Amino acid sequence: MTTPKPVYFDNAATTPIRDDVVDSMVEAMKNNFGNPSSSHAIGRSSKSIIESCRKSIAKQFNVSAGEIIFTSGGTEADNLVLRSAVRDLEVKHIITSKIEHHAVLHCVEQLQAEYNLEVSFVNIDRHGEVDYNHLEVLLDKPLKTLVSLMHINNEIGNILDLSRVAHLCKANNALLHSDTVQSIGHYRLPLDEIPVDFLVASAHKFHGPKGVGFVYIRKNSGLKPLIFGGEQERGLRAGTESIHNIVGLESALSLSYKNLEQERDYVKNLKRYFISKITSEIPNTTFNGNSGDLEKSTYTLVNVCLPVPRSKAAMFLFQLDLKGIACSKGSACQSGSNQNSHVLAELLNDEDLQKPSVRFSFSIYNTEKEVDYVIDILKAYI
Amino acid sequence: MTTPKPVYFDNAATTPIRDDVVDSMVEAMKNNFGNPSSSHAIGRSSKSIIESCRKSIAKQFNVSAGEIIFTSGGTEADNLVLRSAVRDLEVKHIITSKIEHHAVLHCVEQLQAEYNLEVSFVNIDRHGEVDYNHLEVLLDKPLKTLVSLMHINNEIGNILDLSRVAHLCKANNALLHSDTVQSIGHYRLPLDEIPVDFLVASAHKFHGPKGVGFVYIRKNSGLKPLIFGGEQERGLRAGTESIHNIVGLESALSLSYKNLEQERDYVKNLKRYFISKITSEIPNTTFNGNSGDLEKSTYTLVNVCLPVPRSKAAMFLFQLDLKGIACSKGSACQSGSNQNSHVLAELLNDEDLQKPSVRFSFSIYNTEKEVDYVIDILKAYI
Repeated sequence: MTTPKPVYFDNAATTPIRDDVVDSMVEAMKNNFGNPSSSHAIGRSSKSIIESCRKSIAKQFNVSAGEIIFTSGGTEADNLVLRSAVRDLEVKHIITSKIEHHAVLHCVEQLQAEYNLEVSFVNIDRHGEVDYNHLEVLLDKPLKTLVSLMHINNEIGNILDLSRVAHLCKANNALLHSDTVQSIGHYRLPLDEIPVDFLVASAHKFHGPKGVGFVYIRKNSGLKPLIFGGEQERGLRAGTESIHNIVGLESALSLSYKNLEQERDYVKNLKRYFISKITSEIPNTTFNGNSGDLEKSTYTLVNVCLPVPRSKAAMFLFQLDLKGIACSKGSACQSGSNQNSHVLAELLNDEDLQKPSVRFSFSIYNTEKEVDYVIDILKAYI
Repeated sequence: MTTPKPVYFDNAATTPIRDDVVDSMVEAMKNNFGNPSSSHAIGRSSKSIIESCRKSIAKQFNVSAGEIIFTSGGTEADNLVLRSAVRDLEVKHIITSKIEHHAVLHCVEQLQAEYNLEVSFVNIDRHGEVDYNHLEVLLDKPLKTLVSLMHINNEIGNILDLSRVAHLCKANNALLHSDTVQSIGHYRLPLDEIPVDFLVASAHKFHGPKGVGFVYIRKNSGLKPLIFGGEQERGLRAGTESIHNIVGLESALSLSYKNLEQERDYVKNLKRYFISKITSEIPNTTFNGNSGDLEKSTYTLVNVCLPVPRSKAAMFLFQLDLKGIACSKGSACQSGSNQNSHVLAELLNDEDLQKPSVRFSFSIYNTEKEVDYVIDILKAYI
C-alpha cells in the first residue's frame, strides 16, 4: 500500500491548471504585453485578444460578448452584482439561503449593515434541497427583490433547478443572481433558455488560472461598477486587464467544454467507484446533502459523514494529510478556521455534526487507483 | 531610416514583463496550484509561497508583512482604501487634486454621490506643482480628513514631496493615501521614515504581470474590505489568491530594486538624451509639467507639447503609430476616448491645448537608437 505522490481530492477548492492553458498564458505574456486601453498598435493587439476571448466565452452560453465582464474572480463578481443591485437597482429585498458560499453570505451581511435591506433565507431541507414553494411565498413580497442561489453547492454538490428558479423569479419580477462557480466549465448553461440575470465564474475551478473570472450581466441591467476608475470592461470594471489571465480563462473554458462529455463521464465514473467502494468497505458511512446521488448532485464531488468516534474525529483530516491525501472538511475559504461548515450545520443533527465529514472532489487527473488508496487509508483508520 | 521593430515608448501605460518573471510564474502555475486556504500540505505550500512573497515585499519598504495586502491591481487598491476610509473610518473630507489618476478621481466622485462627503482640490500651478501652503489651509478644517495625492504623476511625471505631505498630514491628524503606481519599483520608499497611511502598487508598471498589485495599509488602520467573502489576506480582501501573479509581482519588484541604481541611470540617460535631441532638433518644443526637469520629474517619462499647427494635430498620434512608434497622449485609461487629458487641461492655456502633447515613457528595454528614430520621424512630420 504505497502511493507514489500525493492524492489530490480537493478539486472543488481549486484544480491543477492544464499545460495547454499555461502555454497560452506564456505566449500572451511574452508577445502581448500592451495595455489594451492604449490606442497604438501594441495596445490594440492586446485589446483584440481580450475581445476575442470575450466573444468565445459568450458563445459557450449563447449570449452576446457585451454581457461578459472580466473580474479578478468569482468573489469579486458576486460582490459587484450584489452591491450594485442594492445601490443602483434599488433592490430592497434579497432572498438567499444559509448554505450559500461566503462570497454571497458575507457580502449580503455587509450590505445589510449599510443599506435598508431585508434579507430572507429560503428553507432548505435536511438533504440541502431548496424549498421551491417557500421561495414562491418569499417572492410574493411587494419589494424590489433579488434572489441569489447557487447552482451547484460547493460543499454538498446539490444541483439547483436553475431554470425553475429563473422562471419563478421572472414571473415575480425579481432579479436572479446565481453563483455558478462550481458549475461553469462542468455543466453547459444555455442562457438563451434560462432567464437568469447574473452569473459568476472562476477560472481556477476548471483547470484555469487563479485570479480571474467573469460575471455574466444580462443586457441593459443598469449595473454599475464595484471598482471605479478607467473605462475598462465597457465601464463596468476599472483596472488594467490581466490579459494573460483572461487568455488562460478562455483557453481553460474552451477546453472544458470541448471535452465536456468525455471528461464528465470519466469523473462521474470515478465518483461512482468511490461511492461503491466506500459503501462496501466502510458501512455506516452516510452522504451529506444529495452528494451520494449521481443525478441530484454534481459528478465532481462527494461529501461523506464517517462513522468515526468523537475521540478520533478531531485529528481526522490531519491524519489523511499525513498520508498524502488532500481533501477538505468544507470550502477552502473557511478551512483555516476551526469552525464547522456553515452548510453542514444547516443539514446535520448534533450527533452527525460530531463525526468527521469530509469532501472528496475529483478531476480528470485522478484515478481509480487513488480511490483505492484513499479507501484503504480510511478503512485502516476507522 | 528604418526601424527593425516597433518602438515602445509607452512604459508609463504598461511595461514588457521580464523573462525571469514569466519563468517564476510558470514554475508557480505548474508546481503550486493548491488553494492557499486549504489546510492540507498542497494548500499550505501555496500559502507559504504567498507569505514569503509578502515578507519580501514588506522588507523593501521597511514595513511588516501584515501591512501588505495583495489586490488585483492599483485601481482596486485605491478603491479599497478610499471607500473604506469613508465608510468605516468616518472620513468626512477628502483632499485631492484635479491631476490625480481616474482610479482616485472617479472613485472619489462615486463616494461623494453615496456619502455626505466634502471634497477639496488642492491648487496646482501651471507646472503641475502642488501648492503646499494651500494644502495646509485645507487641512485646517475641523473634519476627519483623508488626503489622496499621487507620488509621481502618470502623465507629467512630477514628483510630490511625499515626506513633506506626510508630515503635514500627521501634524493635522489627517490620513494620507498616495497612489504610488508610477513610483513603486522605480523609487525606494522607506516607510519607516515617511508616515504615510496607505500606498498602492501595480506590478505591470515595473515589468511584472497585469492583474496584480498590493496596498500598503499601516498597522491598526481599521480598514475593512472592498470585496467580502472568505478570510483571505487577513480578512481584508476576499477571493482565492492569484498565486502565480503574486509570485510574478514579488519577482518583478525584487529585480527592480536589486538593479535599481544601474537601471535608473540607464533610463535617466535615455531621457536626458531624448530631451537634448528634441530640444536641438525641434525648437519650440515645450515640456509639460516638470517633465523636462531631470530632478523634479521621474526619470521614466517626458511629456512634450509640440509646435504643430492645429490642422496637423488631430492625426498626430495616428501618424506616429503608422511609423511603429507607441506613445500616448495621456494615460492609457483614457486614450480610447476622444477627450483631452484632464491633467493637461489643468495646466495648459487654450493655445497649447490645441497642439499635440505626447507622453514618451522609457524603460531599460529602450535604446538611444530608438530615440534617434523617433526624433527623426517627429522632425519629418513637423
